[in-house]
Amino acid sequence: MRIVIALGGNALLRREEALTVENQRYNIQIAAKALAPFAQQHDLVISHGNGPQVGLLALQGAAYKPDEIYPLDILGAETEGMIGYLIEQELINLHPDGRSCATLLTQIEVDPKDPAFKHPTKPIGPTYSEVEAKALARERNWSITQDGESFRRVVASPRPIRIFEIDVIELLVKQGVIVICAGGGGIPTMQRKDGSLVGVEAVIDKDLASSLLARELKADALLMLTDVDAVYTDWSTPEARALRCISPQAISEFAFAPGSMAPKVEAACEFVEQSGGIAGIGQLKDAAAILTGDAGTLITSKSETKWWK
Amino acid sequence: MRIVIALGGNALLRREEALTVENQRYNIQIAAKALAPFAQQHDLVISHGNGPQVGLLALQGAAYKPDEIYPLDILGAETEGMIGYLIEQELINLHPDGRSCATLLTQIEVDPKDPAFKHPTKPIGPTYSEVEAKALARERNWSITQDGESFRRVVASPRPIRIFEIDVIELLVKQGVIVICAGGGGIPTMQRKDGSLVGVEAVIDKDLASSLLARELKADALLMLTDVDAVYTDWSTPEARALRCISPQAISEFAFAPGSMAPKVEAACEFVEQSGGIAGIGQLKDAAAILTGDAGTLITSKSETKWWK
Repeated sequence: MRIVIALGGNALLRREEALTVENQRYNIQIAAKALAPFAQQHDLVISHGNGPQVGLLALQGAAYKPDEIYPLDILGAETEGMIGYLIEQELINLHPDGRSCATLLTQIEVDPKDPAFKHPTKPIGPTYSEVEAKALARERNWSITQDGESFRRVVASPRPIRIFEIDVIELLVKQGVIVICAGGGGIPTMQRKDGSLVGVEAVIDKDLASSLLARELKADALLMLTDVDAVYTDWSTPEARALRCISPQAISEFAFAPGSMAPKVEAACEFVEQSGGIAGIGQLKDAAAILTGDAGTLITSKSETKWWK
Repeated sequence: MRIVIALGGNALLRREEALTVENQRYNIQIAAKALAPFAQQHDLVISHGNGPQVGLLALQGAAYKPDEIYPLDILGAETEGMIGYLIEQELINLHPDGRSCATLLTQIEVDPKDPAFKHPTKPIGPTYSEVEAKALARERNWSITQDGESFRRVVASPRPIRIFEIDVIELLVKQGVIVICAGGGGIPTMQRKDGSLVGVEAVIDKDLASSLLARELKADALLMLTDVDAVYTDWSTPEARALRCISPQAISEFAFAPGSMAPKVEAACEFVEQSGGIAGIGQLKDAAAILTGDAGTLITSKSETKWWK
C-alpha cells in the first residue's frame, strides 16, 4: 500500500512542553517507532506540523531584531529543515540498513485571493496573557485570537492548490524511498501576475496539504496522527462519543472544532471522496491499529456510522 | 556533462551586506541567472555555503533564550531549508516549464575523533570588536579568532566522510532533476558507538563537502563559485598572479589562505586526483567561462601551469 502519514504538531511536541531540541528529538523518536512498521511494509510519505516551531523562530527573530523579522515562508522553510532532519535521522536510526529516506523541501501554491488572507485563523507560537497579547498586536501588527483562557497569534491559512515538487515526490516513492515532505503544510507560495513564484506570509493547514499530497500521489490511505484518540461527535459535551467508522457524507452532518478537528475531517473527506482511499484519524501510538479499524476513526466511502461505545 | 556547483556564502551575500531576506533573494536571483545555462544543458547539482545565515540563527536564538541555543546541526538544517528554498524558487522562476528541481536535506558523516573538534577554525556569524568578542567568549563559551582588525566566532570544521543521502541524490540526477543539496557543507552527523546517528556541534567546509559529493556522483566537473576571480599565487603581495590552469601536483607547491582559498584548492585537488574530472574556481558571474577556460582557474590532471598575465 501507498500511505501518506501526517504527524500532528502535538504528536511531535506535547502541549506546554518546552521547545528544546531534546524534547523534540525525544518525541520524534517515539513517532519514528510508531511509523516503523509502515516503513517496512508500505510505500510511505510523511508530512508533519510546525506550529510551535514556526512560532519559536518568529520569537527568536523578534528578540534579535524586531524590525527585521523574517516572513512566514522563510520560517516555514527553516522548520522543514529542522523537523525533517530530526525525523529522517531517527527513522534511519531504527533501520540503519533499511530503505533510503529523503527529506524534500516542498513549496505549495495558494491563491492570493484566498479569503483566508483577510481572516487569519491559524494559531502559531506560544500562548499569552491578554495584556501581553494586546501589546504584541500593537507592536508587531499581529492578529490575535482567544484560545480558552489565553491568547495566541493567528496567521492566514489559505487552501493548498498545487504541490510544486509532486513529480519528484512521485519519482522517489516509486523507487521505494521513504519521503518526508510538505512539512508545516508546505512553504506557502503564490504566482505573481507575470507567472513567477514568491513566498507568502501564511501557514497552510498541514492536514489539508497532506490530503492534497495523498490525492496527487493516488495513495491508498491517509493517516492523520494527533494526540486525540479518535474523532468525537458532540466533543466537550456529556454526549461526546468516539466515532469508529463513518462515510464522508455522514460525517458532514456533524460539526467539529475549527482549526483543530474540523480541518482533519475536511482533509479526510476530500481524500476519500476524490480518491476512493481510506482515511484514518487517531493517536500516534495507535498508528497501525487505526488502519485496520482497531483504534481511532476510519473514514471510507462505504462505512456505516459506528461509534466505539 | 554532470556538474557539481558550490555557491560560496559570499556569492549569496556580499560582505558587510545586511542579512535581510530581500538581500538574500536579490543575490540568489543573480546566482540563479548565472547557473541558468548549466541547468539547460547539463546534469546539475548545486550546493551552497551558510556561514552568515547559521551565524544569524545562532544570534537570534541567543537573543531569545541564551540558555537554550540550538546546536549547530539543527541550525545547519534550518539554513538548508531557508537557502535551499530561495535557490529552488528562483531557479523555477527562470525556467517555469523547465526541469524539475529538488532541495534535499543532507546529513554528512564526520569522525568524532577528527582533530578539528579540538581546534575550531571555521568563522561563522558577524564580526565583533575585541571587547564584544571577549565578553561573548566568556558568556557563551565560544572560541574566537582575529580576522583582520575584527574578531569572529569560530567552530569546529571536521572533514566530511560520507553523504547519507547519496543514493537518493544519484537517483534524482539520473532522472534529470536539478538537485540542491549539501547546503552549508551538509548537516554534520556522527555515529555513536551503537551505530546510531546523532548531530554534531560543527560546520563542515562546503567546498570539501562538495568535492566529496562530486566524487561520489562521479561528476565530470566541480565548480566552486565565490567573489574572487581566480586562484592567486602570492596573494596579498606585490607578486600576486592569477592562475589560469594548473595540475593538482603543481598547485600543491603553493600556499593559500586557510579557511578561504586553501580548502577550495584542497577540494579541487581531491576531486581531480580521485575522479579525473576538472575543477574550476572563480567568480559567480564567470560560471560558464570558467568551465571553458576563459575565466577563473582550472585545475586538471594534465594542465601545464599558466597564469592570466
